[in-house]
Amino acid sequence: MAVYTEIGDDELQDFVAQYDIGSVLALKGIAEGVENSNFMLQTDLGTYFLTIYEKRVNPDDLPFFLGLLDHLAAKGIPCPLPVHGRDGKVLRRVEDKPAAVVTFLSGVSPRRPLPQHCAEVGGALARMHLAGRDFAIARPNDLSLTGWATLIEATAGRADEVQAGLAEAIAEEFAYLRSHWPVDLPTGVIHADLFPDNVLFLASKLSGVIDFYFACTDQLVYDLAICLNAWCFEREAEFNITKARRLLSAYGAVRPLDQREVAALPLLARGASLRFLLTRLYDWLNQVEGAMVRPKDPLEYLHKLRFHQRVVGVGAYGLD
Amino acid sequence: MAVYTEIGDDELQDFVAQYDIGSVLALKGIAEGVENSNFMLQTDLGTYFLTIYEKRVNPDDLPFFLGLLDHLAAKGIPCPLPVHGRDGKVLRRVEDKPAAVVTFLSGVSPRRPLPQHCAEVGGALARMHLAGRDFAIARPNDLSLTGWATLIEATAGRADEVQAGLAEAIAEEFAYLRSHWPVDLPTGVIHADLFPDNVLFLASKLSGVIDFYFACTDQLVYDLAICLNAWCFEREAEFNITKARRLLSAYGAVRPLDQREVAALPLLARGASLRFLLTRLYDWLNQVEGAMVRPKDPLEYLHKLRFHQRVVGVGAYGLD
Repeated sequence: MAVYTEIGDDELQDFVAQYDIGSVLALKGIAEGVENSNFMLQTDLGTYFLTIYEKRVNPDDLPFFLGLLDHLAAKGIPCPLPVHGRDGKVLRRVEDKPAAVVTFLSGVSPRRPLPQHCAEVGGALARMHLAGRDFAIARPNDLSLTGWATLIEATAGRADEVQAGLAEAIAEEFAYLRSHWPVDLPTGVIHADLFPDNVLFLASKLSGVIDFYFACTDQLVYDLAICLNAWCFEREAEFNITKARRLLSAYGAVRPLDQREVAALPLLARGASLRFLLTRLYDWLNQVEGAMVRPKDPLEYLHKLRFHQRVVGVGAYGLD
Repeated sequence: MAVYTEIGDDELQDFVAQYDIGSVLALKGIAEGVENSNFMLQTDLGTYFLTIYEKRVNPDDLPFFLGLLDHLAAKGIPCPLPVHGRDGKVLRRVEDKPAAVVTFLSGVSPRRPLPQHCAEVGGALARMHLAGRDFAIARPNDLSLTGWATLIEATAGRADEVQAGLAEAIAEEFAYLRSHWPVDLPTGVIHADLFPDNVLFLASKLSGVIDFYFACTDQLVYDLAICLNAWCFEREAEFNITKARRLLSAYGAVRPLDQREVAALPLLARGASLRFLLTRLYDWLNQVEGAMVRPKDPLEYLHKLRFHQRVVGVGAYGLD
């Protein structure tokens, strides 16, 4: 939960005046999102979402992120639509940081996803993958193999503070993934962080997909592996095969997986587990004194990794 | 900034169904308020504010707080209006904690109050004091002399960690205030925490007064002393006499101060300084590991106290 930047009175007025969105009725800092400062902005014309990009976001990536939202929204994906200023631009500065206004989407994130939610997410993810195919900008996934190597180097010396043997388990898994990682699967734009927090629902129907700040170009089915981890495990890390089946079959109904993608799924799910294990481990070991964000448990993703390591066929995910 | 309680999916539906406020379109945790969990709740009928009361609020005080809002709103004070459920009640439970829904007020809190803001606040405070005169419930101010004594006892041993000599300065000031504190000034309902964060403006006009969770029964002019501290000092703790004059004269235009109240103002301003010095000092010395709230600087209020100690007449506040 985070508001890192406060907006001055005059600066807010000046900022909003650069858009055709009416005059400010309310501005409330939102207690979600750990990367940026987010505000709900109400004007006499409607509700908007104002984001100030903090230092964890590379400003060079913003044209990719905002351009992607424009592109996907134009194709009917229910994602936030960047609001263009009177000058046509979507990106400007507030308090000397990059900032943008997007439309506010209705819906509530599920605290405990149900199988119906998983089916909705699967379908939406596939539609997003199809809609992103002709997006012109590419952005490498800096949290794939190379990024993992960097995180392993940064955490190896202290990983065992979290659990004895963790550093070795990570090193072994990484060695295995590096030598088996597929490189020839269909690629495109992936969301790369499609957790329940980032999906909105109205009465069990998906109404919005938000927070595209990890989006990048990668193998599409890797995005599905991330969702498998994010949506199909219960609180105690038991895998829920019913949810997985709903997720995967809804995805496949929109964008059928080819045989190589299906075969790669267990391995990609291991990679997706390692990715979140590593970033959580890094954040856990590098807690900032006085930080306003409570780090998430890295071991949740060790349990998920263990599950996928034991998978011998995609039947374990409910696929035939 | 704070959201301490997450609301389950079914629980949210069940909760909202107890009101005539339509169906949920969005629920966003708000990054403000350190006492409670606050959410902006959008429905197809409008925007509301949902508060879940956390352990720092005594549940026995809630009928006072919510009844006060009902009372003041009925008299035209621009404060949140509690929304009564279908059963007539304003207080119910979410996730086994007390909770209430109030109307959402438009407006933005000023980051750097201008003299015009101070005048608006002065007038609104006086109108609130008049409107509260016939409110039937009383609530003692637990952050007056008795409360200060408790806080001094809890902080004396470690106050000098913050600044050498602080414990002694506090003890001396408390001894002085205890023997000079007035007891015969007009009393009534005071807000007791009317900082800029808690006042909303639309185009320099006051549009809302919020966060009544320190409201209590006390000498009315003490509330004005709190505002003098909260609104009339600049960032480096320089007193701005223009702002003070605007605040006090706007107050007096609505509810003229009697001679004793005017004469007591410097002393009450010292008390108001000590009150916030002590609570901030306590919070500073008792930071919770992993807490999501950054404590405020107690010494800001030592500087304000020093200012008022040197005041020899109310001319220093811009009064004749």
